[in-house]
Amino acid sequence: MHKAAIGIIGASGYSGLEATRILALHPEVELRWLASDRWQGDRVSRRAGVGGAAGELRYLGLEEAGEHLAGCDAVFLATPAEGSLELVPRVLAAGARVIDLSGAFRLKDSAAFARYYGLDHAHPELLAGAVYGLPELFRAELRQARLIANPGCYPTAAALGLAPLFRAGLLEAGPLIVNAASGVTGAGRKASEDFSFAEVDGDFRAYRVLKHQHTPEISQTLSRCAGAPVTVTFIPHLLPVRRGILSTAYARLKPGASGAAVAAALADAYRAEPFVSVASRPEEVCLKAVVGTNRCLLSAACDEDSGQVVVISAIDNLVKGAAGQAVQNLNLVMGWEETTGLTHLQGSHP
Amino acid sequence: MHKAAIGIIGASGYSGLEATRILALHPEVELRWLASDRWQGDRVSRRAGVGGAAGELRYLGLEEAGEHLAGCDAVFLATPAEGSLELVPRVLAAGARVIDLSGAFRLKDSAAFARYYGLDHAHPELLAGAVYGLPELFRAELRQARLIANPGCYPTAAALGLAPLFRAGLLEAGPLIVNAASGVTGAGRKASEDFSFAEVDGDFRAYRVLKHQHTPEISQTLSRCAGAPVTVTFIPHLLPVRRGILSTAYARLKPGASGAAVAAALADAYRAEPFVSVASRPEEVCLKAVVGTNRCLLSAACDEDSGQVVVISAIDNLVKGAAGQAVQNLNLVMGWEETTGLTHLQGSHP
Amino acid sequence: MHKAAIGIIGASGYSGLEATRILALHPEVELRWLASDRWQGDRVSRRAGVGGAAGELRYLGLEEAGEHLAGCDAVFLATPAEGSLELVPRVLAAGARVIDLSGAFRLKDSAAFARYYGLDHAHPELLAGAVYGLPELFRAELRQARLIANPGCYPTAAALGLAPLFRAGLLEAGPLIVNAASGVTGAGRKASEDFSFAEVDGDFRAYRVLKHQHTPEISQTLSRCAGAPVTVTFIPHLLPVRRGILSTAYARLKPGASGAAVAAALADAYRAEPFVSVASRPEEVCLKAVVGTNRCLLSAACDEDSGQVVVISAIDNLVKGAAGQAVQNLNLVMGWEETTGLTHLQGSHP
Amino acid sequence: MHKAAIGIIGASGYSGLEATRILALHPEVELRWLASDRWQGDRVSRRAGVGGAAGELRYLGLEEAGEHLAGCDAVFLATPAEGSLELVPRVLAAGARVIDLSGAFRLKDSAAFARYYGLDHAHPELLAGAVYGLPELFRAELRQARLIANPGCYPTAAALGLAPLFRAGLLEAGPLIVNAASGVTGAGRKASEDFSFAEVDGDFRAYRVLKHQHTPEISQTLSRCAGAPVTVTFIPHLLPVRRGILSTAYARLKPGASGAAVAAALADAYRAEPFVSVASRPEEVCLKAVVGTNRCLLSAACDEDSGQVVVISAIDNLVKGAAGQAVQNLNLVMGWEETTGLTHLQGSHP
Repeated sequence: MHKAAIGIIGASGYSGLEATRILALHPEVELRWLASDRWQGDRVSRRAGVGGAAGELRYLGLEEAGEHLAGCDAVFLATPAEGSLELVPRVLAAGARVIDLSGAFRLKDSAAFARYYGLDHAHPELLAGAVYGLPELFRAELRQARLIANPGCYPTAAALGLAPLFRAGLLEAGPLIVNAASGVTGAGRKASEDFSFAEVDGDFRAYRVLKHQHTPEISQTLSRCAGAPVTVTFIPHLLPVRRGILSTAYARLKPGASGAAVAAALADAYRAEPFVSVASRPEEVCLKAVVGTNRCLLSAACDEDSGQVVVISAIDNLVKGAAGQAVQNLNLVMGWEETTGLTHLQGSHP
Repeated sequence: MHKAAIGIIGASGYSGLEATRILALHPEVELRWLASDRWQGDRVSRRAGVGGAAGELRYLGLEEAGEHLAGCDAVFLATPAEGSLELVPRVLAAGARVIDLSGAFRLKDSAAFARYYGLDHAHPELLAGAVYGLPELFRAELRQARLIANPGCYPTAAALGLAPLFRAGLLEAGPLIVNAASGVTGAGRKASEDFSFAEVDGDFRAYRVLKHQHTPEISQTLSRCAGAPVTVTFIPHLLPVRRGILSTAYARLKPGASGAAVAAALADAYRAEPFVSVASRPEEVCLKAVVGTNRCLLSAACDEDSGQVVVISAIDNLVKGAAGQAVQNLNLVMGWEETTGLTHLQGSHP
Repeated sequence: MHKAAIGIIGASGYSGLEATRILALHPEVELRWLASDRWQGDRVSRRAGVGGAAGELRYLGLEEAGEHLAGCDAVFLATPAEGSLELVPRVLAAGARVIDLSGAFRLKDSAAFARYYGLDHAHPELLAGAVYGLPELFRAELRQARLIANPGCYPTAAALGLAPLFRAGLLEAGPLIVNAASGVTGAGRKASEDFSFAEVDGDFRAYRVLKHQHTPEISQTLSRCAGAPVTVTFIPHLLPVRRGILSTAYARLKPGASGAAVAAALADAYRAEPFVSVASRPEEVCLKAVVGTNRCLLSAACDEDSGQVVVISAIDNLVKGAAGQAVQNLNLVMGWEETTGLTHLQGSHP
Repeated sequence: MHKAAIGIIGASGYSGLEATRILALHPEVELRWLASDRWQGDRVSRRAGVGGAAGELRYLGLEEAGEHLAGCDAVFLATPAEGSLELVPRVLAAGARVIDLSGAFRLKDSAAFARYYGLDHAHPELLAGAVYGLPELFRAELRQARLIANPGCYPTAAALGLAPLFRAGLLEAGPLIVNAASGVTGAGRKASEDFSFAEVDGDFRAYRVLKHQHTPEISQTLSRCAGAPVTVTFIPHLLPVRRGILSTAYARLKPGASGAAVAAALADAYRAEPFVSVASRPEEVCLKAVVGTNRCLLSAACDEDSGQVVVISAIDNLVKGAAGQAVQNLNLVMGWEETTGLTHLQGSHP
């Protein structure tokens, strides 16, 4: 069987590592090279704990990677936004599809990008062609994409919970609140005292209050689903766990909308989706049910008297929130079964 | 020096144990007896890890405790609401003050009590005289109290953050959202698989969604401060930590109210309070800063464009959220310095 | 393709659950039924988080399972020793192979069994035919086995580290010390306050000091490898982690034996083993490298001056220490490639 | 009352921070200044969470501290060994006592120091006068000391468990094994990826196998107690907890020595000690019982048949293993009650 040739740039970060591990077992993929300045020259089996042909490879440096772009069917960029801004045009020019795990090409509004990411967008001309890679919402567009902007972890969790309700016209445009908490791998691999075990264990706190860069991304997706601007107040928190995001979103029912309609909208949206499940009670939505899998588990509760809707959704930030969703997108653009290479990700219980 | 005689009923629960440890070092207190069916006959030093005279005591059974009520200056009830409903009249009849750590006498509305606690209130005639024990908000009343309803842990955290803003007339009555997370000791001491290490470690989830019994308690306190009904949507979550509560509350600014006014209201309210501190940034509010202490740390952030206010507050659920606040209340009713016996609680860092 | 029919009795314990998850993805296996009184009637997908045909099954009660023994190629017993003592003869009589994850048939000496397990062995006549299921040490015997006594978790970790050194005649028969630590799932699924998050988090302690039932099992295996009685002092400890065992064993070099010989013996023993790796330094041996996999990672250090050898080995107690090794044994008795159904178990990092 | 003037150099490390917190509440102490380059200029209350007069201070830089040595009754050095080697002579010359928490002056053998610490000892002439600060073993000497070498955390735990047995002549000189595990604060405050939450949580491993610098320190203390050379094999492990050390030591009974004699030797040694308790069973010795206190809890088990003795002991590495013991030593040299300022350290349960 002819396998598709895939390269990964930024393979030593947590998302790059997760992509390595998933792609190493993917039946349609030949993981042709991996690049990481940090691990340059090291054998992949030693760093990523994978066997087989992928394990035999050695990490390239970022410079070397440039020479290997041609001939790839797709390249995964698990780089910071700055890196992706530079690399995306080069990969596209080399004829390969790009799945960019950074935030560089997610926001259509380059002014919002500049404000939240703190840097000017070097390639606004590519934004129109970039497809936002949330398959459950935008599957049709994704099949033809050359440049996929793989969604952020928080936006994946929040949008999967809320989008069907906005599409069904059940929610007011605001005020919409997304209160979410993430495991520490969401912050990336950092040798920072703030993320040391001694500081994080036993602690819990909010961070980037009212200024997190995922705020406009959530807003953009939901506005598109609502057909009208949706303003989001988003507050992320840091959990003393390694992986997982739980989003607890608070929205207002439109007059006349019922709890039953909310439940029906979620059930209809996800009945046929392999990676999204609707739990019968919001108390069942938890990190344990999704960590180590490409799944999103979600559920809603309504207080019809007050018009308040609460939607709770959970994902693994490194899988459905990053590398797993990237592979799901790869499957789509390559025309493979969408679950290929993702079904063995059963998670670990306990 | 003559010391005040104190008894504790329900001494083996986490709140009772914490009260034991604080009172054993309290310079004005003689911990005269402790009652616990579970530990009846055991020496206090062995179970509670305290030394001195208190450590030499042996736990009484609950039945025996009844004979020791007379002669106490105050009795702490660290019992479930059912137990407190039965015990409070007996302790009052014996001439002792009661500091009740349960929810039995917190809600003035016995119908709300019945709905949220699932049992009829056996002594509604005592509700009017019960004083809600949140010293920073209701200190004057507390000095004369015979029956103190010690606040719940979530209501303490949420109300300390929001009450000054309602008192200052800065917030709309609704929609008000309290999203909070607690360590597992908030659930009490239970031999339940749900709270086993294998299940809780690495997990995070919401519980009692839209039906937690602290909802009407938060609403009652804030309504009183606002001078108008305040409706609360409250969702608690279970954190994989032992102790600590972080409350992230979302409210709406009244027209004309500013972020500066919010900051000023908090600063004014707590400038002279020994146990409440206002952090300069909401990202500084965290469990680590308060666990093991009787302190509440809080901070607010405003988005004036959208009118959204976020107030984040943190306490130790067993100290300021239970036993520490109970001792603070004891200090008030006994006429002692309010910080007596609480200043050595520095917490542990890291 | 014709698949082998497998049943699992005791499917709701942590080992049974892990076996369910591995067998549900095994390409040669039809998981025909699962039995658990606790989950009787529940759908497997809901409890075990597995999809496919296995997920569609419903748990049988233990009584019902008896009617389904015939027709199975093999039955996994993930039951306590008492249960296995009763079930093994029935499964064998029904013509199926048995892979028993309990300690019921591991010790050849029924007196030692009685002493350490606290019950008389009801079927000593079956002990001679039971094969101890540690493939790396006893592979040849296992291919023909009808009754496989799947090893304990601690004995697997300790024996893999020490057996090659005893076989090579490098170690004195004693004193041999095995100091080991396990995650809480090693204690099974229990609704016990001792294993609650509030008690276990932040703690570490030894348990069953000098009386753990794995002591004679380690001794039996190593004595067989040494060709002489080996006495073991074994002390297990409880770690605040969910999964994983680290064994730190201390033995004495025979006169003339060198550190180089120790390293060579380990390298030779495991060069061709798919599931055992020798780390170049003992500091690399850690839970993270093996949890979620069927691997054992080990390494030795010697102080030639004092004659002390230290062998450190790590496994996942539920995989190589229980269900994964059971599947490895199944592969052997069924004549399949030994790694079948186990290679996707890459673990999770971080 | 006249209070003793104390300074702390190296106040931002975990040991220095713990010393700050204990001394801030010490009734006989005026914490006169604290020095830390890292926190220079910051207010102590903000960094260390302490109130009162100490909280009002601002951290000095290390250079400035030199000007404040004179006039101090004692100076705590919570510096690395390199720093202490340079500072100790200066503090002594200024007329103040030194309590050095580093390993610089613990080993009498400067060659062993050079080998294990990797640097030459700059002041071997001071070694003879340095007193090893383990009060339970060497109290008499400590009362007159000018330079106290405060013991390492592992040596404190191991020696308290074993020294009485060597003194009583019950143990063979070897082979002696100390297998121990420590929380991450034992490694100091480091912005290292190795100590990040994502890496440490869920993990367990040995480190510095057969080469940890506490090996000769344990050996030196026990040799002194035995009156003969005692060789130690010591292997430390890293626990996923913040604080606490558990030492599990394995020794050989001398012929004729009994388990009863072992128990009696421990009981006799510690009957009157305020900070050391002998548990009735080794399973009771755990981190939770000692973390946050200056206590050591220990217990022994013997297998008289094999002659094996196991002694398990637990301390808080930052309190009895560092800052608490330093204050205990301060109390001794100042002639105060030995428990002064240490009794409020009750720990936290749960």
